[in-house]
Amino acid sequence: MTEFDFIRDHLAPLAGPEGLGLTDDAARLTPPAGHDLVLTKDTLVEGVHFPNGMYGADVAERLLRTNLSDLAAKGATPMGYMLSLAIPPLMNDVMMAAFAKGLAAVQDSFPPLKLYGGDTVRIAGPMVVTATLIGKVASGQMVTRSGASIDEDVWVSGHIGEGYMGLLHVLSKRIDPPPTGEALWRWEEAYLRPEPRLSIGGLLRKVASAAADVSDGLVADAGHIAEASGVGMTLRLPDIPFSNGTFIWANGQADRQAAKTKLITAGDDYEIVFTAPKSRRDLIALGASELGVALSRIGYTRKGNGITVLDYADDIIPIISKGYEHF
Amino acid sequence: MTEFDFIRDHLAPLAGPEGLGLTDDAARLTPPAGHDLVLTKDTLVEGVHFPNGMYGADVAERLLRTNLSDLAAKGATPMGYMLSLAIPPLMNDVMMAAFAKGLAAVQDSFPPLKLYGGDTVRIAGPMVVTATLIGKVASGQMVTRSGASIDEDVWVSGHIGEGYMGLLHVLSKRIDPPPTGEALWRWEEAYLRPEPRLSIGGLLRKVASAAADVSDGLVADAGHIAEASGVGMTLRLPDIPFSNGTFIWANGQADRQAAKTKLITAGDDYEIVFTAPKSRRDLIALGASELGVALSRIGYTRKGNGITVLDYADDIIPIISKGYEHF
Repeated sequence: MTEFDFIRDHLAPLAGPEGLGLTDDAARLTPPAGHDLVLTKDTLVEGVHFPNGMYGADVAERLLRTNLSDLAAKGATPMGYMLSLAIPPLMNDVMMAAFAKGLAAVQDSFPPLKLYGGDTVRIAGPMVVTATLIGKVASGQMVTRSGASIDEDVWVSGHIGEGYMGLLHVLSKRIDPPPTGEALWRWEEAYLRPEPRLSIGGLLRKVASAAADVSDGLVADAGHIAEASGVGMTLRLPDIPFSNGTFIWANGQADRQAAKTKLITAGDDYEIVFTAPKSRRDLIALGASELGVALSRIGYTRKGNGITVLDYADDIIPIISKGYEHF
Repeated sequence: MTEFDFIRDHLAPLAGPEGLGLTDDAARLTPPAGHDLVLTKDTLVEGVHFPNGMYGADVAERLLRTNLSDLAAKGATPMGYMLSLAIPPLMNDVMMAAFAKGLAAVQDSFPPLKLYGGDTVRIAGPMVVTATLIGKVASGQMVTRSGASIDEDVWVSGHIGEGYMGLLHVLSKRIDPPPTGEALWRWEEAYLRPEPRLSIGGLLRKVASAAADVSDGLVADAGHIAEASGVGMTLRLPDIPFSNGTFIWANGQADRQAAKTKLITAGDDYEIVFTAPKSRRDLIALGASELGVALSRIGYTRKGNGITVLDYADDIIPIISKGYEHF
């Protein structure tokens, strides 16, 4: 399959009108009135951000979903994306078609997301995929990392640690004690098809002073908010939400606290950590219930800097690795 | 140097206000009123799009300049870019700083171009760099590939073949007959620092029915216009502009016509090929003179499809390879 065949047969059907049928080498976007555009760009490298040889639909889903998660943290609504795909020698036509299918599946899940354009090349090396996502948010309403003040609450969506457990499973690591089928399936889904929390965008714009998505690890990404906002942050480990299966796994380890510390620093969660004034607690509880998304209050902002994590006895847990550093 | 050090020390100084100091993982862009946005994305892979081991400023310049060339072909004005950089093991801190210097040099040459954001990762393989350029054009004025009609003129800017000659030189190939120092220097510059023809954007918006930048080869990129527009095209080899040095090289080859055919199919020119109604000839000549850019009339559009190239005697030259296919 040549580049042109791949684009014509598999990518052009995914393009929005902005993509000009992918017969041009540029996209034309008429900006929506009264909105700012939000741009995010993430690159996934085979062997670094996904396991070697994991070609096809799974990579495509992960690429778009993790980028959509960045938009979700901004309170933005996705519009389209530019795609760059460097195809390794072992990726054959079937895998390329599967990759396009993965893109299509995500577009179907998050309308009106469309492909705008991009570039497709060959590489004598690992697969490299990059997406630039374009989203919109009402003018001036984008949620940043830098808006937190002291004496606010820290919240997180969903459950922490499932992406990490899913990665262990995808890498065929032995997981002890053996999880239930349900737990394993949830972990696998969390890793392969993380759910960008776009549904809470409206709530974030209303209540959040700052937000970030949890990609590098809860402690690291909370730390990004703290640093950008010039505040310190204290998180309470007992208040951090784990799913049943993850909780059972952690409590089955010789050092339970070390296991939980691993979970809050491991990354790949794609949940949203955000800060909000205490006055917003009722609004957040109501929003969580209306949207069907768990939102947990896990700590507070304070003077100073950095992240402190407290255990069940309010003693400080030493955090060696705050989370995944890209290099 | 960690990712965070590199971003803080070398990339953050390149960021516009849209980049939020690169402390966030998104950029916020307030769209300019009365304009469409033009998005282009190009990826360069070490060993495919630039020679192995060519790290540093040269890659950065090439990446931005080739992407700016895409915007130039649309008649767009550059605003900013999202950058993705996958850093190979052999690229050290000095090379990374040099890469950032190359970005800075291009930004200085094309104000108000600024860095908006992106992603920096490590790769156990070749260097991969991707830029998504964002430009603007007055609403509805973007020049596409698909607007050519039959019986129009085909034009090209500057000289063809210098990028190819520069590539031979950069790859340390023997060039015979030996060129003058001036020719060699021009070729080298053309390959390493191609000049995006942004200066003719206003003229293109006024006169061009369709345009493309010459990256894959003059014949191939003219072919992209022909295909997208549903027309055929005839080019006359004697009318295709070569610089003195390139012309002398071609005439020094055993098969002169084969050498010139190579030059018009080799790519890396980053000139603009465009179509325009015959009624625009005077306007184009005037524009060329005012802007100080050579614009040569090299052929015409016709019914049918595909590209025909005629020699000095108006006989058809068989073109085996139309140009660089990415794979």
